[in-house]
Formats: sequence, structure tokens, C-alpha cells
Amino acid sequence: MPVLTFLTTTHFDFGAVKVLGPELAKLGVKRPLIVTDKGVVAAGLIDQVLNPIQPKPNWPVFDDTPGNPTEEATLRALTLYQEAECDGVVCVGGGSSMDLGKAVALLAVSGQPLAQYDPLKGGGKLIKGIAPVVAIPTTAGTGSEVSVGFVIIMNDGRKLTFAHPTIIPKLAICDPELTMGLPPMLTAATGMDAMTHCIEAVLTPSVNPPAEGIGFDGLWRAWRNIRKAVENGQDRDARWHMMMASTEGAMAFVKGLGAVHAMSHAAGRLSDLKLHHGTLNAVILPSVLRFHDGHAAEKYERLRAVMGLSANADLAKAIEELNAAIGLPSGLSKMGLKTDHIPGMIPYAMSDLAHFGNPRKPAAEDYTALFQAAL
Amino acid sequence: MPVLTFLTTTHFDFGAVKVLGPELAKLGVKRPLIVTDKGVVAAGLIDQVLNPIQPKPNWPVFDDTPGNPTEEATLRALTLYQEAECDGVVCVGGGSSMDLGKAVALLAVSGQPLAQYDPLKGGGKLIKGIAPVVAIPTTAGTGSEVSVGFVIIMNDGRKLTFAHPTIIPKLAICDPELTMGLPPMLTAATGMDAMTHCIEAVLTPSVNPPAEGIGFDGLWRAWRNIRKAVENGQDRDARWHMMMASTEGAMAFVKGLGAVHAMSHAAGRLSDLKLHHGTLNAVILPSVLRFHDGHAAEKYERLRAVMGLSANADLAKAIEELNAAIGLPSGLSKMGLKTDHIPGMIPYAMSDLAHFGNPRKPAAEDYTALFQAAL
Repeated sequence: MPVLTFLTTTHFDFGAVKVLGPELAKLGVKRPLIVTDKGVVAAGLIDQVLNPIQPKPNWPVFDDTPGNPTEEATLRALTLYQEAECDGVVCVGGGSSMDLGKAVALLAVSGQPLAQYDPLKGGGKLIKGIAPVVAIPTTAGTGSEVSVGFVIIMNDGRKLTFAHPTIIPKLAICDPELTMGLPPMLTAATGMDAMTHCIEAVLTPSVNPPAEGIGFDGLWRAWRNIRKAVENGQDRDARWHMMMASTEGAMAFVKGLGAVHAMSHAAGRLSDLKLHHGTLNAVILPSVLRFHDGHAAEKYERLRAVMGLSANADLAKAIEELNAAIGLPSGLSKMGLKTDHIPGMIPYAMSDLAHFGNPRKPAAEDYTALFQAAL
Repeated sequence: MPVLTFLTTTHFDFGAVKVLGPELAKLGVKRPLIVTDKGVVAAGLIDQVLNPIQPKPNWPVFDDTPGNPTEEATLRALTLYQEAECDGVVCVGGGSSMDLGKAVALLAVSGQPLAQYDPLKGGGKLIKGIAPVVAIPTTAGTGSEVSVGFVIIMNDGRKLTFAHPTIIPKLAICDPELTMGLPPMLTAATGMDAMTHCIEAVLTPSVNPPAEGIGFDGLWRAWRNIRKAVENGQDRDARWHMMMASTEGAMAFVKGLGAVHAMSHAAGRLSDLKLHHGTLNAVILPSVLRFHDGHAAEKYERLRAVMGLSANADLAKAIEELNAAIGLPSGLSKMGLKTDHIPGMIPYAMSDLAHFGNPRKPAAEDYTALFQAAL
């Protein structure tokens, strides 16, 4: 039976970071671990987040989050959390920092090993609790600040998705100011991550109309603003809408996701290539839209209407044209993926949590064809 | 700054009432007061709700909820709650039973008098707590099962709207089965209540895109299903969608409402007429849509798109035609309202919480003109 649940409280606007101090106090968090990456630190964003707090706090910082978060890095951050006697986590960064921070908060209270919480193996039952998480995104794409999940590359090479209502951050602080310095390529790639979340969440057959409505609204916003945000990073209005689309995308995918993410996760774990998750989604999305066409007719009709396209418009083509306009690669081969990589990715795609959310379930040979089409 | 918060957990589907027993146990509620009305009892719905619980509980029932809930009835229900040593409230009924039940739960923990919690006078700060509320709607319109508010006619004649996040029911159980026996006229009137919630919530200028997306989705559903549900009450699919539109309407109006509700509340307190809230909304909506036209152009465009209307369609006319098609009155005069009533209603409309949520703020003379137009 559909059970509808939302959320996090989300403070959302330019200047929102000023609520961090008071809100941590309300949560009773006195010594959080800041989880971030070196790029965020170098861009001065940690200072920007902490500056409003007086006296300036001396909280421990884990700035070694990898581009795709790993179990190994999670355990190093957990050690720092424990040694510094932290009582909560403040994630400042993109999806990787937020996901890694959530994992640390889970392990800090519920205990190791991480693999036991795999939701495909009923791991949710083993969750005893999670330290309070405040998530502050510095990109507009992942929406991890309001999502029930996180994705970690395990020590054994699998890229596992963990998902449970307790994992939703206690508080999200979405301040589009933090995204003003994002370069065009990252704006484009993360923005397409948000758009893919909205589209895949809508298409997933699970029943949750409020989440679907949020997904349509996020798509409406992302579709109208991504070009503007890429062309002019100082367009504050476009930055606001892209960050909102990102948050809405993750609120929507409480419903689930689909083959784009199954494939993107499978490709993202290839450690020799270090591929960007949002870029992968953008490039894979058109092929999957062609695969599902005819299997979710009413939803395709609504997607077209929300995007302002004509009733018979080719959705996949519209996304391809958008990708080209915002400077994203036209195929996976441009990102370094080769035909030889495909067989090894299929089992990972088919065991990914997102695989189970498709309107038309792809078989192994379908994934092969989808990867070929996206090359 | 926009702060986005949702909700209640909502169990939603045919047969959902079966979760009541286990969910009350999870909430630690052992002896709830059932708040309902005599029509609901006569229709056998209390039995339908309690039958799955074994052994059959012997919980006290307050079945004297008036058509528009009053402070006087609230206090009688509170006395029963206290005498029976209840520890929670289960509301089974339309908006009136749910609103009255919420008021009882608030008074039971935070204490009397009710008027002190008026949000327009900062009453939210006085709320110390609220007894757990489980809301089970038997109509599809009010959405009170997931809303932050309730409306009570006070002993001094005012119709007051109370709203605070603590007032959201702990659990909503939405079982469209309970609406299968609703007669066409009540299906139409309550359905238009849901549709009005979706439209007014979207038009309110406060910033909450996820709530707006939910409002658009509810409208999409209500617009396509209200005729079907009125024409054939046994259309299970239409009943499901109308109940979902009702829930979504109330999730959307976390943003606020507008002049339709301000006027409808002002008319609803006329004790000689006992007018139905949903019918009032349906009849008043077209005039207010004409009043706001040109003051929320992009939203009007999106409303038309969601309703599948042409780009230049007259929204107000579309609602008038729908009202006629589903057998609702063509004007307030058909409901017994006279020109003489208007001056007395204006101050109530202008002090209503919903008055403060309009894209174009009506002055006293605007309300006079709006009432005249709706007569």
C-alpha cells in the first residue's frame, strides 16, 4: 500500500546559511564533524558557512571526500568523528560529501560494518539510530540534502545504495549563494542530475502522487533555467530555481528511480575512469527515454506538457539537444567508456536498487543495447 | 525565508483502515476518543473502521459533530475525552469531524481557552502539546487529515482558523472505500473543495515549490475525475483519485489559501443558513479567478496546461461549466444568500487567515463586488 512520508525541514534561500548556528543549537549538537572536500574548502565555502557563527567554531573538518565516496574514506571520517568526540555531522558539498556524511552518522550510532545496512538485504531493520545530520549543498543537482539515501563504493568494489527514512537529514540548508561560483560544466552536469531525478522519479511506477507532483515541478524549473545558469553563473534567479529543482528531484525520488541510475551507478564505480554521476545521467537519459517510450504514455504526455513541448515531441531528442546546448558530451565514448566495459557493468546495473523502479524492466540484453546506444 | 516542511505519514489505498489498530499501538494510544457525526455512524463507517481490530474495542464515541464545528461542541467532546480518560483522538468523518477532533486533542494537552491559540495573535507560542490524532476521512475534499489547521465557529460568532505544525495529525488513513457511499451532491461539493484548495494554494504568493507541485498534481487528478465520481459513485478509480486530490490539496495549502476561503468562511458562519463549505468554495471560485486574472499570469498558464485547456481559455468559465455539469448551484443566491447578508460578511472575510494569502489583495469594496458577482 502507498505510504506517503516526507521529510526534513528545509531552509531555502539566498543567505540561508545564517540559520546553521541556531539550528544546531536546537538539535542539541555541540561539536559536529564537518564533512566536505578540498575543492569546497579551497573555494572558501566552509568559511562562508561558518562565518555567521560567533565565536567562530573550531569544529573538526574531514575534507578528504573522494569524487565518488568510498567505504574506505567513510571509515577514516568515522575515526575522526570518534576521536574528536563529535555529536553530529554537518555536510558541506555536493552529493559525495553529503552521502559520505550520512554514512558516517549512521555508523557512529548503529555501528559497523556498513554492508549490513544494504536495503536489498533487509538492512533497514538493523539501523539502531543515526547521529543528527545537517546537509548544506554547494551544487544544485544531487538533492542528497533531503533524500532517504546515500551511495557508497564498497571495499569489495560494489557501488551500494543505502536507503531508509532515518537517513533523511534532520535539516537541510539550501543557499543558492554557495553555487554562484560553480563553473559552467559542473553547473550543467549537476543540473542534469536534478533533471534526471525528476524524470526518473515520475516514471517509476510506484504510487506516490505528491512526490510525482514535486518531480513535475522540479522538471518545470530545471528545464527553464539550466541553460540560463550555465550561460551566466551570476544569474541569481536561475541559480535559485536550479537549487530548488535539485531539492525537488530528491523529494520526488522517494518514489524510486530507474535504469538511468542503475547504469550510471554501474559506470560510476569504474575506478580507472572516475566518471561524474550527473554527466553520466545526462548522457544515458535519452536512450532510456526511448526504451520506456510507449510504456508510460500518460506520464510522457505530462512530461511534454510540463516542458512546454508539443504533444508529439520526441522527449529523448529534446534532452539530447539540451545536452549539446549546455556543453555535455554526446555519448559515453566521449567520456572514455568503451564497448569492452559493457559486459562488466551489466550485473552491477541489474542488482542496483534503481533497477527495480522501471516502468519497463530491462533484461541483461536490454542493458547491453542501452549502453551501446549511449556510447 | 521559505521553510519547507511536510507532514504526517499517510496510509493511502482501498482497505487502508486495516492499519488503524497496529498504528495506534505504535503511537502508544490505548484509549482514543472517536470523533465523528451521526451520518457517519448511520452509514456504518465506524463499524467499517473498527471491525478489523480484535477484540472489538469499546472506545468512547462523540458523534455530535455539527455540520460546521463549533467551540460549544468541541468542549462537550473534550469533557467526554477527559471523563473517559482518553489518550488520543481518532477522527472519522469529513472536515468537520477532523477539525473538531484536532481541537479536542489540542485542548486536552495545552488547555483552555481555545481562542488563545489564534495564530493571527501569535497563539502558536502557547501550544504546549497536542494529543496524538489519527485522521480517517470519509469524504474526499477537506484534506484535513494532513493539514496544519482546523476551523471552529467560536462562541462569540467568529469563524476562526487555527494553524500550527503541531496540529498536523500523527497519522492519516485514507481509504477511498469509505467514500463509495457518498451521494452525488456531496461528492461534487467536497470534490470542489479539494479542487479549490489546489488552485488557491498554487495562486498564493508564498514560496513553496514542492507544495505548489503537489497542488498542480491534485488539480490534474480532480479535474479529470470529479465528473466520473459524481456520475458513478461506484467508479473506484475515480474515488481513489478524488481522495488523493483531497489529500494533495491540503498538503499544498501549507502555503496558504486566498479570497475564496476568506469569503467561504465568512458565509459559513451564518448560523441561519448552515451553508456547506465545499459548495460555497465551488460557487465563489469563478469570481475570485476573474479578480486575480492578470496578477499571476505564469501560474494561470500552468493551471490551464494542467487542466488540458487551451492557452487562452477562460479559467473561471471552465469552473462555472464544471459546477453546472456536476449539479452545483450557479450562484450564492440559489443557496439562500441575499444582498443584505453581504455587508455583515466583509469584516469576517477581511480578518480571515486566508485573506492574507492572495496574489492581489482585495479591499472591502472588492469583497463586496466579489460577493455580488457570486450571488
